[in-house]
Amino acid sequence: MKPLILITNDDGITSKGISFLVDVMKNLGEVVVVAPDSPQSGMGHAITIHDPLKYHESDLFVKDGVKAYQCSGTPADCVKLAKNHLLGRMPDLVVSGVNHGSNSSVSVLYSGTMSAALEAAIEGLPAIGYSVCDYGYDAEFNHTRDFVEEIAKKVLEKGMPKGTALNVNFPKVSDEPIKGLKYCRQADGKWQEEFDERTDPSGRKYLWLTGKYVLFDKGEDTDEWALNNNYGSIVPVKIDLTNHEYLQDLLK
Amino acid sequence: MKPLILITNDDGITSKGISFLVDVMKNLGEVVVVAPDSPQSGMGHAITIHDPLKYHESDLFVKDGVKAYQCSGTPADCVKLAKNHLLGRMPDLVVSGVNHGSNSSVSVLYSGTMSAALEAAIEGLPAIGYSVCDYGYDAEFNHTRDFVEEIAKKVLEKGMPKGTALNVNFPKVSDEPIKGLKYCRQADGKWQEEFDERTDPSGRKYLWLTGKYVLFDKGEDTDEWALNNNYGSIVPVKIDLTNHEYLQDLLK
Repeated sequence: MKPLILITNDDGITSKGISFLVDVMKNLGEVVVVAPDSPQSGMGHAITIHDPLKYHESDLFVKDGVKAYQCSGTPADCVKLAKNHLLGRMPDLVVSGVNHGSNSSVSVLYSGTMSAALEAAIEGLPAIGYSVCDYGYDAEFNHTRDFVEEIAKKVLEKGMPKGTALNVNFPKVSDEPIKGLKYCRQADGKWQEEFDERTDPSGRKYLWLTGKYVLFDKGEDTDEWALNNNYGSIVPVKIDLTNHEYLQDLLK
Repeated sequence: MKPLILITNDDGITSKGISFLVDVMKNLGEVVVVAPDSPQSGMGHAITIHDPLKYHESDLFVKDGVKAYQCSGTPADCVKLAKNHLLGRMPDLVVSGVNHGSNSSVSVLYSGTMSAALEAAIEGLPAIGYSVCDYGYDAEFNHTRDFVEEIAKKVLEKGMPKGTALNVNFPKVSDEPIKGLKYCRQADGKWQEEFDERTDPSGRKYLWLTGKYVLFDKGEDTDEWALNNNYGSIVPVKIDLTNHEYLQDLLK
């Protein structure tokens, strides 16, 4: 039996990144898409509990021979819906993305793309979230194709420890091809926010959240270092948030 | 100068849990409330990037001598807004809650309450998320009062490692007083979902996400064990999601 691969994302089922992922994954197994019907960027690990979920079958990927559903919920909802309601069996791999924009460093915490992967990890399913450092609707993904496939193949073959998922990021396309892949740790950094205050036509104030990423980390073993040096970065992330080191201190 | 304590939550500024937290924290410092104007449960670490944010001052806590703002965004947005736009100086402590409902074990990943605390941790601010295992609007919080105060006092005094926050949960009120506090690790468990399918008046199907928590973990050092044995649980959680152990394997 061919491996069953569930694809989801957070930019919505009509985004370019998910089409690209379908195109790569259909060579590796039986693919089913369950993705949000609208963009869900920055949704973190949100789930829909105060509203009902709706979904319907989509013909977007019929041309690829791929069954697809669009859902009113978040990326994490899509994984739950797929696993419990739409797929007849457990998927062998859950892939999320390819996200239009970086999810490296601390952005993993805000990422809808990675929340889908972590949701799969909660279920003990091998999972990968892919992102490209290009926020454009028309972002280029083809320069990552061989790497995206290579990583998925390896995970299908070797599996992954329970409660773990891979956070994979690629540099934006440039004149230089991507040099290779690096296993990394999550870089220490943050978004330095600024609020852009404006006034609406009725005279009420409103704010746009903007900001720029600030890297504190000087290590050469981080995802930020890899991306800044034209490598794809792979950070294994886990669902156990316990700070075990500090816990040991507290227990003394 | 008195310590500045920022209070937020995910149940919204009118919830009982945040009033309780104001009532405890006003004894420990100068308190400012910045909280969502509507319930945000299950929002995970969502942030508002595709819509503008709105906020206005609220007179809900004037009786306590406490300045308060309500905001259209998520708990993580509230922390960003407070830090960058509303508070004149960095808070000495950020407290979130008290949540109506448990955020122990894997629920930490879905928790809006804890996302506010983790957002503060990203900023290097000491932070605590408090929850009580009672989902009712009219949940009882008084049995946790001394513990809530004790933990906050200790954190104000001793601080916390960078990038860390405390996930504090309390049992629901019962005939037995809470036995004490335990430092714990996050229990291994998950929500076993079921989708309750219904049909709307127009004949369209919709689903409610429901489920029950399943504990896999037999350890007596977990938050679930503590709560099931009538202790308050304190899990130090961190923003670095890297699975360092597995990373070392991958690098071999």
